[in-house]
Amino acid sequence: MSVINDLLDRLSTKKIAMYNKDFLLTWEKTSDEIEATFLVARILQEMRKANISPRIWHSGIAVSNFRDNSTRTRFSFSSACDLLGLYVQDLDEGKSQIAHGETVRETAVMISFLTEAIGIRDDMYLGEGDRYQREVAQALDEAVQDSILPSRPTIVNLQSDIDHPTQSMADILHLAEHFGGLDKLKGKKIAMTWAYSPSYGKPLSVPQGIIGLATRFGMEVHLAHPEGYDLIPDVIELAKKQAAASGGKFVHSHSMEEAFKDADIVYPKSWAPYDVMLKRVPLLHAGDQAGLKELEKQCLANNAKFIDWECTEEKMKLTKGGKALYMHCLPADITDVSCKAGEVAASVFDRYRNDTYREAGFKPYIIAAMILLGKRKDPVKTLKTLIERNHKREIE
Amino acid sequence: MSVINDLLDRLSTKKIAMYNKDFLLTWEKTSDEIEATFLVARILQEMRKANISPRIWHSGIAVSNFRDNSTRTRFSFSSACDLLGLYVQDLDEGKSQIAHGETVRETAVMISFLTEAIGIRDDMYLGEGDRYQREVAQALDEAVQDSILPSRPTIVNLQSDIDHPTQSMADILHLAEHFGGLDKLKGKKIAMTWAYSPSYGKPLSVPQGIIGLATRFGMEVHLAHPEGYDLIPDVIELAKKQAAASGGKFVHSHSMEEAFKDADIVYPKSWAPYDVMLKRVPLLHAGDQAGLKELEKQCLANNAKFIDWECTEEKMKLTKGGKALYMHCLPADITDVSCKAGEVAASVFDRYRNDTYREAGFKPYIIAAMILLGKRKDPVKTLKTLIERNHKREIE
Amino acid sequence: MSVINDLLDRLSTKKIAMYNKDFLLTWEKTSDEIEATFLVARILQEMRKANISPRIWHSGIAVSNFRDNSTRTRFSFSSACDLLGLYVQDLDEGKSQIAHGETVRETAVMISFLTEAIGIRDDMYLGEGDRYQREVAQALDEAVQDSILPSRPTIVNLQSDIDHPTQSMADILHLAEHFGGLDKLKGKKIAMTWAYSPSYGKPLSVPQGIIGLATRFGMEVHLAHPEGYDLIPDVIELAKKQAAASGGKFVHSHSMEEAFKDADIVYPKSWAPYDVMLKRVPLLHAGDQAGLKELEKQCLANNAKFIDWECTEEKMKLTKGGKALYMHCLPADITDVSCKAGEVAASVFDRYRNDTYREAGFKPYIIAAMILLGKRKDPVKTLKTLIERNHKREIE
Repeated sequence: MSVINDLLDRLSTKKIAMYNKDFLLTWEKTSDEIEATFLVARILQEMRKANISPRIWHSGIAVSNFRDNSTRTRFSFSSACDLLGLYVQDLDEGKSQIAHGETVRETAVMISFLTEAIGIRDDMYLGEGDRYQREVAQALDEAVQDSILPSRPTIVNLQSDIDHPTQSMADILHLAEHFGGLDKLKGKKIAMTWAYSPSYGKPLSVPQGIIGLATRFGMEVHLAHPEGYDLIPDVIELAKKQAAASGGKFVHSHSMEEAFKDADIVYPKSWAPYDVMLKRVPLLHAGDQAGLKELEKQCLANNAKFIDWECTEEKMKLTKGGKALYMHCLPADITDVSCKAGEVAASVFDRYRNDTYREAGFKPYIIAAMILLGKRKDPVKTLKTLIERNHKREIE
Repeated sequence: MSVINDLLDRLSTKKIAMYNKDFLLTWEKTSDEIEATFLVARILQEMRKANISPRIWHSGIAVSNFRDNSTRTRFSFSSACDLLGLYVQDLDEGKSQIAHGETVRETAVMISFLTEAIGIRDDMYLGEGDRYQREVAQALDEAVQDSILPSRPTIVNLQSDIDHPTQSMADILHLAEHFGGLDKLKGKKIAMTWAYSPSYGKPLSVPQGIIGLATRFGMEVHLAHPEGYDLIPDVIELAKKQAAASGGKFVHSHSMEEAFKDADIVYPKSWAPYDVMLKRVPLLHAGDQAGLKELEKQCLANNAKFIDWECTEEKMKLTKGGKALYMHCLPADITDVSCKAGEVAASVFDRYRNDTYREAGFKPYIIAAMILLGKRKDPVKTLKTLIERNHKREIE
Repeated sequence: MSVINDLLDRLSTKKIAMYNKDFLLTWEKTSDEIEATFLVARILQEMRKANISPRIWHSGIAVSNFRDNSTRTRFSFSSACDLLGLYVQDLDEGKSQIAHGETVRETAVMISFLTEAIGIRDDMYLGEGDRYQREVAQALDEAVQDSILPSRPTIVNLQSDIDHPTQSMADILHLAEHFGGLDKLKGKKIAMTWAYSPSYGKPLSVPQGIIGLATRFGMEVHLAHPEGYDLIPDVIELAKKQAAASGGKFVHSHSMEEAFKDADIVYPKSWAPYDVMLKRVPLLHAGDQAGLKELEKQCLANNAKFIDWECTEEKMKLTKGGKALYMHCLPADITDVSCKAGEVAASVFDRYRNDTYREAGFKPYIIAAMILLGKRKDPVKTLKTLIERNHKREIE
């Protein structure tokens, strides 16, 4: 209990204004809000350990809206919602349907009459995923203003074309726990690098999410990728500014080796070239299968030029003491395991497998924290009420 | 709390026999039972506002059985069940499978061992949806009689070929709230009219549900549609009789203008011609895709003759003071928004959008009320127990 | 309450070590453990009757992983989990995907961070279903050992290529209740026989499950099938040994009549020939549709030779007093009802329909008992706590 009390004390010092707001991009949140999210996640984790139920709702609905496949995020979202007492109802639009305008507005309201939280994944269309989430958000705002909805469901971005905050927040919380505190990240070097994969079209949201968040903690963030594998320019600009403001550093190169050199942490991960992502959007919209096939062919041929962008034992030796912490959002493309040539050598992945699992384990708590903070005006009070209530999460 | 107490007092005056029965057609329920359903819906809504959990079940299953697509009714059903404490398990039979006889009987029992409520949508086959629901009901009755099931799950009709009671009940409750009471509906004129839509094969259950319910409250119900777009003859007969009995009026014409003239409420909505619905059944059963395509072609060509059956600003001017309340079960086909020419002009829909959303918002409570009344012998006592128990629905 | 107390007293005499273990094959459990499972199932059933909520978890996740279709087992699993307070999240891998190795290990952990129970059906591939479940189990063990998971989810086999314990346990509990106690089964003759069906490729797990369990209670188990319709040899060996040890008998013949003669219980049920099941595996893996079609053709032609293996009124007359108890895991292939010629005559099935429904009704409680015993060190104490707590399952 002293752990929980300590975390609560720290939480009560944070100045936050997250109530009735969504969690779409980490850089829309203040540092206090980011830290509050970490603290609430940790408190919920400790409450579960202490067998104190953090169930806020006796009944209530959460909506999951996956516009792209998902296993681990789906389970993280379900687990988070269930932990707080919400029943998850999936909104299945059919994979191909890209609804906009009137339909989005109407559907947003129709699914929200008794709804507390909405998790949305929409990451396939550059320029659209984040826009869709904001369209839903605006419809909800208006419906609350017009007294159509009794309260404002909070939206959690479960991956958009721009950011993947439930992933990046779990990643940073993992680092904080690994290195002994958020403040210990100051000065640490993290290499966020592209890596070769035989697959194609992976979203940019993970690398963007990492450079958009890690640069806020005084870290040296080194982004490296082959030419042509750029990220959204605005996010690069943001990363630069944030690094400067936090006393950190943002380096952008085309060398995996440079990025790995003396790194404390490496995050080698494949993504699609920015240009290809741009070209894909009209093809996807037009349902142009031939065009998409041709684009994929070109892209894979291009990818193949960078097959040496693999996180090998040799490259790991370049890192600080040869012992950088390897990270991945999973599933990784592991050479000779899940594919012939991939993002990471099997022996490297093996050594860090448990670390990547631990990394993933923070996600349900991060999501639960985002929901709690979006739905509760005074989260410290709510958590104290739950602790005093002391319902057992499970009967022994 | 005085609102809730007042509603409870009114509920306690109603003579009802809904316990262990299903809610399939509104006209199988007495006026007291219809009013009791509205009262329970309103009480549940007020309890939620007052943060009193109406959770009756600590654990329990509800089954959803959608034999046609659904988004809003699915969410309404989930929300209603969750509100009362039931976990929804979907029975997914595969869209094409039309099971009858032994299979229906057996499946009905197999899904019901720990089940409290079953929601069924089966609206595609004229002459079959309602029959299927009764087949399930009979199987459950027998299984309870033979002590195979510990209790009788209540069936809620989530739309059949004949009626759509969760919609029509939400619609009338919306009218009652809008006009200041159920008794205020007496003498009001409602125009339930066909409207043009570029789509085809929409069920008849909404207009049938409306004329089958609205005629019970002393309203003047004007049904209008182009020749050939008839409804099930029995429902027309029923509407006539009910209108006479309630001191209202039932008018049946082929003129949208006549229907709109001096109307207090308009409900313009597309549906398929009766003949086409009859012809569709054997084609659907035979899986005759070519026949269905041909029928659709004919039907759309026929529809196109009535493209002027649109709820325009001009037609709205015919209504009482030009200010009739526009209703729709949603989604509406809005001209120049969701289609080139549709059921309603964009400017009309815009003005009433919030009203249609409010209308839809009653559905979860109507469904919850139907379940509660089917499963509780003394609903007043149950509700009072819940209020006294005073579990918070959510922790502040 | 005296019924529950009596069952609890009997439960407390059983020596069991089921905590943190899975329920994969009945023959991996001691007789005390089998009986404890029956007792807990009965206690949960009685608690429900007495309106005492057996909800152990205030929040918590259960995972369903169906690698083959299921309706009744899906509902049994959902009902069981909900009864104990668990929200079921389905892991939908896509029907065709057979994941192994790294993917299985990783997925097992990713879905388990807040998970209490995992139900797996994997029965299509001989030699693989059970192996898959053990692969998941090992991944979970390692993850708990490495402190990645806070606790060990218990795995319930919802049908593998080898055993179908939730079915066979429900079947034997049904017999015990029918004949007045588990001890009354001693000396009873059960005919587990093949029966003709126009379908093909049904798993061997039901007959294997029955002979692998019924032989432990001193019964005379008579397995009969046409030549070529063998079961896994190891299970036959096991049945022999168990029958000898329990003072029962195991007879293996190729005559339905011999099996039915003087039987107290008959269980006529179709399954695929062992050889065909072996041949199917590489074809399924290769996705060889033509090969599978050809194999099916051969198999159905072979089946047709044994069309007289039907449970007719005539054959029923051979049984003890002509009144053996007919059993089936459902759905049965009923002659002239679900097919032209099937496993059982309509008049026989009709007479025993309610018995088969009662048989099925034990499944949710058996599954709940398996979960409870896998997750609670001292189940007697847990159950007593729940009874003392005395939360109503439903508000009257």
